[in-house]
Amino acid sequence: MLEIRHSDLAGRIGRLKTKHGIVETPAFLPVVHPVRQEISMDELEKIGFDMLITNAYITWKEYGDAKDIHDILNFHKPIMTDSGGYQVLVYGKIDVDHQTMARFQAKIGSDVAVPLDKPTGFGLPRSKAEQYVELTLKAAEDAIMMGDEDSSMIWAAPIQGGEHLDLVEYSSKRLLEMGYEFFALGSPTELMEAYEFYTLAKMIVTARRVIPLSKPMHLFGAGHPLTIPLAVALGCDTFDSASYILYAKDGRYMLPNGTINIDDLEYLPCICPVCSSTDLKEIIEMNRAERIARIALHNLYTIKREVDGVKQAIVEGRLWEHVMQRSLAHPKLAEANYILNECSEYLEQCTPIFKDRALLLSLPIDQYRPELTRFRRLVCSNIRSDKKSMLVLLMEQEEYPFYISSRYKMIKDAINAIQGDGSDDINSKGKIIGDDVQIAYYSPFLGIVPEEVSDVYPASHLVGIRYGVSYDDFPTMLNAIIHFIKSNTFKKVLIEVDDRSINVMRSIKDELQDVEVEYCLKTEDIAAFIKSKIK
Amino acid sequence: MLEIRHSDLAGRIGRLKTKHGIVETPAFLPVVHPVRQEISMDELEKIGFDMLITNAYITWKEYGDAKDIHDILNFHKPIMTDSGGYQVLVYGKIDVDHQTMARFQAKIGSDVAVPLDKPTGFGLPRSKAEQYVELTLKAAEDAIMMGDEDSSMIWAAPIQGGEHLDLVEYSSKRLLEMGYEFFALGSPTELMEAYEFYTLAKMIVTARRVIPLSKPMHLFGAGHPLTIPLAVALGCDTFDSASYILYAKDGRYMLPNGTINIDDLEYLPCICPVCSSTDLKEIIEMNRAERIARIALHNLYTIKREVDGVKQAIVEGRLWEHVMQRSLAHPKLAEANYILNECSEYLEQCTPIFKDRALLLSLPIDQYRPELTRFRRLVCSNIRSDKKSMLVLLMEQEEYPFYISSRYKMIKDAINAIQGDGSDDINSKGKIIGDDVQIAYYSPFLGIVPEEVSDVYPASHLVGIRYGVSYDDFPTMLNAIIHFIKSNTFKKVLIEVDDRSINVMRSIKDELQDVEVEYCLKTEDIAAFIKSKIK
Repeated sequence: MLEIRHSDLAGRIGRLKTKHGIVETPAFLPVVHPVRQEISMDELEKIGFDMLITNAYITWKEYGDAKDIHDILNFHKPIMTDSGGYQVLVYGKIDVDHQTMARFQAKIGSDVAVPLDKPTGFGLPRSKAEQYVELTLKAAEDAIMMGDEDSSMIWAAPIQGGEHLDLVEYSSKRLLEMGYEFFALGSPTELMEAYEFYTLAKMIVTARRVIPLSKPMHLFGAGHPLTIPLAVALGCDTFDSASYILYAKDGRYMLPNGTINIDDLEYLPCICPVCSSTDLKEIIEMNRAERIARIALHNLYTIKREVDGVKQAIVEGRLWEHVMQRSLAHPKLAEANYILNECSEYLEQCTPIFKDRALLLSLPIDQYRPELTRFRRLVCSNIRSDKKSMLVLLMEQEEYPFYISSRYKMIKDAINAIQGDGSDDINSKGKIIGDDVQIAYYSPFLGIVPEEVSDVYPASHLVGIRYGVSYDDFPTMLNAIIHFIKSNTFKKVLIEVDDRSINVMRSIKDELQDVEVEYCLKTEDIAAFIKSKIK
Repeated sequence: MLEIRHSDLAGRIGRLKTKHGIVETPAFLPVVHPVRQEISMDELEKIGFDMLITNAYITWKEYGDAKDIHDILNFHKPIMTDSGGYQVLVYGKIDVDHQTMARFQAKIGSDVAVPLDKPTGFGLPRSKAEQYVELTLKAAEDAIMMGDEDSSMIWAAPIQGGEHLDLVEYSSKRLLEMGYEFFALGSPTELMEAYEFYTLAKMIVTARRVIPLSKPMHLFGAGHPLTIPLAVALGCDTFDSASYILYAKDGRYMLPNGTINIDDLEYLPCICPVCSSTDLKEIIEMNRAERIARIALHNLYTIKREVDGVKQAIVEGRLWEHVMQRSLAHPKLAEANYILNECSEYLEQCTPIFKDRALLLSLPIDQYRPELTRFRRLVCSNIRSDKKSMLVLLMEQEEYPFYISSRYKMIKDAINAIQGDGSDDINSKGKIIGDDVQIAYYSPFLGIVPEEVSDVYPASHLVGIRYGVSYDDFPTMLNAIIHFIKSNTFKKVLIEVDDRSINVMRSIKDELQDVEVEYCLKTEDIAAFIKSKIK
């Protein structure tokens, strides 16, 4: 159902196959009102939206099942129908049963249909949430068992549970067992309105840990540029929202970083066709209907741009950088990033093993990038220096790979000088002396980099920040060094330090009582030591 | 000359008065070629550029001084003329003296003219740089002494010196003494091409420390969206560059975060009129001239959007947030932010004392915001608790202001319980007992917040990140607490701590040997202690 073309973190560019054609994901599906739609289908298509979502319940009330939904809306590309769950959330209940709504969606030719769910929303007591989850699961079971008139319709499994993460997990498991191939995570709108992005992120991760990344997942009600990058990075493929028009009715102008009332703007900091052909004063002075239409179109362009920006970031292998940057829009979004530290196992699945572009590392949290976690694991599990008795640990250079740096060469020369010291390169025990020394360097982002892997991706494919971060901010580095030393049999470790690293590196000595650890301020001193002591 | 309407950090929205009208700053001035200009003046005006820059030397070679530059270009808004310094930088020297170029610029009716300078560029040995600086100063002196035919022309003082910061400082001082009112910082192009943004930032700060913020400053050759936010924040008002067209000739498509060859794009992640009316494939398949024109227009829209984004951020009082976010485009830009820690004294000058919107605090570097530095200084210099013998230091709550929080009330109730303890609120020495206790809280971003100032801006006007940062990252907090305690006469300090803060707070005890410091894990314990001990 979803053919994946590019991926990064858990974000994918895919081709979603529906009855009415292929839609490229990630995709934003504008919510279209089946009766009172202010922005025309032509305009939506022109901006670049190839799939819409509309409300099946309102359609049923207004039109019955005589016409195909594509004819009703006059849109002949894929249409997803939401079943009325939103109305249930708002009004408590609606006057139709889930079997009727399931048959109805099949009848009107929906491309992606949703069983009538009972949204948990946010802040629901656990017992109520449990009850809603069970009702939703029952509707989901009946819908998929029913068999539809048109077997090419996609059923989207509604995942409920809200902030009760075990319920989200339970729902996801049950729905997966039922045989669903497309999932839709329910009702995060209230969470997003409260800026509870961390909780939202945890919900997505909980569902995604159950649902294989090969199966697409929709996120209901996510219509703001703010939420899209992180949601994509965590594995959401499609989104819908009516916010573009609802906000417009309140004069709210979407910006990549938030929403602002048009009356509070002094400029139109946007270059979309609406904003570059009209000035702020004109928009404010328009009649209400026209102003709403203009702001709604601007809002749609803003969402479109965010989706395209995310897609380009996936293609470039820089979705992590993109998510980090966008998250600085708000502290509550920035803190949601810390979810990324907790789910590297599934972020790694879709993150390419090699990338064309350098990793751009500006923040301590970047140490948790899947490429770097993977590298530290590689070093940890694959590099054994069993026969070596000494580790020389230099500081990171800005020259990559390590072995072209002058300080590496200085150490290597010292070792070679010993080897060439009339002993025919072999010491008395028949072992090459140079082989007795493991050279490596430590790096805040990479951990420990033994010379053997210093040109393995991404060790030589990164640009790291040089000022403003402290070695203290990199616990993964210290762990990697200690783990590496413990996994080997070094008797002596010589560590090059400076003012910035000495404090952190001191704790290595405390951790390793069986190993003799010495600190040197100069590479020259290490070289001299090797010359004097080895043999 | 510059009327300032809004300001934030050292960034200003101003009205620059020229012969041909008022230009709102910050402003980007597209470089226009006097002979071979590919993008028409109409198009530039339509995008929203109200001022241009062109090359006086090329104009002189091609047209002599018979015509006004506005007629030559057919642009009747303000025009700045660069004197040929760029040609000097590229070709070593040119066949005209500085007096001729000065008179010529006056003759053709330039709005802002530049004395013929000798750019230092980047990487020039110090002795050469000194020589170039002196040559430039001589030309500048002669130009301003000359008196021009039209006294309403603005002379822009060319500041040279490159990465030799003392020369930048010297140039700035000399030019200021000469009576210049408009300044132009020279030749950072090579620095920007090498992504040496930190050095560029230091050059700007060095010049700006000499030149009062009331006098506008131009930054030569700064044409990329990447550099604009930080440059504005450090006090640059106008920028120029030909990059929009030069890049276009190489197929380079500007994005807010960098430049990418159009052939490497899979999407047009842009909604400008060019990109939303054409698709990527069409642009790539156009003939060369048309493709160049399209990319150049897109590049101009991208620059325009960046300038407008910066302006809106200034109006909102969120230029700091904007700079931080944009800087995550590249680690070498992110590290340049650390200049902001070093120049708070002049950033404070233009940062409003009160702002309408909350400070959004997502990164440890945010502790150096001028609003927070100012607050810590206020506490440090204005709050004296001379008569108090005890300090109760609670952890930060998410409830603002502090005095509405339940934990504050718990302490206050404990104090009041003592006061009401049959002693008529007055103890035996005639002093109100509650007055013997200073209540305050500690906050990573604010430092120490005594109850008296807990609703003073910005103490109750911030949203701080809740996860992912550590108390260790906030040295300003620890300094503020220690300074506050040392400036007073507390005998006892009770500090509320938890797992995250205990380590950092322990160092207070080490610093303050004359004061009895105790740590409590619960507010209740502090309240109980007060009830038991005070009197």
